[in-house]
Amino acid sequence: MKARVIVTLKNGVLDPQGQAIEGSLSSLGFSGVSGVRQGKVFDLEVPGTDEDAARSQIKEMCEKLLANTVIENYAIEISH
Amino acid sequence: MKARVIVTLKNGVLDPQGQAIEGSLSSLGFSGVSGVRQGKVFDLEVPGTDEDAARSQIKEMCEKLLANTVIENYAIEISH
Repeated sequence: MKARVIVTLKNGVLDPQGQAIEGSLSSLGFSGVSGVRQGKVFDLEVPGTDEDAARSQIKEMCEKLLANTVIENYAIEISH
Repeated sequence: MKARVIVTLKNGVLDPQGQAIEGSLSSLGFSGVSGVRQGKVFDLEVPGTDEDAARSQIKEMCEKLLANTVIENYAIEISH
């Protein structure tokens, strides 16, 4: 089963990378761009065909490795 | 207008980060996980209400800064 995990910073957490990108975009002439936040996306495959089992396994992967749950949120998308 | 840009490596491009994560996941006991690929996600806001104009502006941002189009693909999602 294929899955995608999107990890983003929680609201209120400072995002210096996002701010740097916002600055670069405006110096490239893209005026008015705001709220730039950078996160991570993981594409992966897990064995089996049981979506619930896959979702709980991936949730555990997020909790243990893929996301720093103190400052990051994660969203799991599963496709067959 | 809010938008999300997802930047992922093109197929065939080596992903050492993804491989390292795959190794860590298996050493954490997540057996059978494969094809781990890591990418970037950018959330941002652009002015205006014209979706086509916003999409072409963001496409230009991707081509100039957010993605290395030699080795990366990008996908743009726009929400109102």
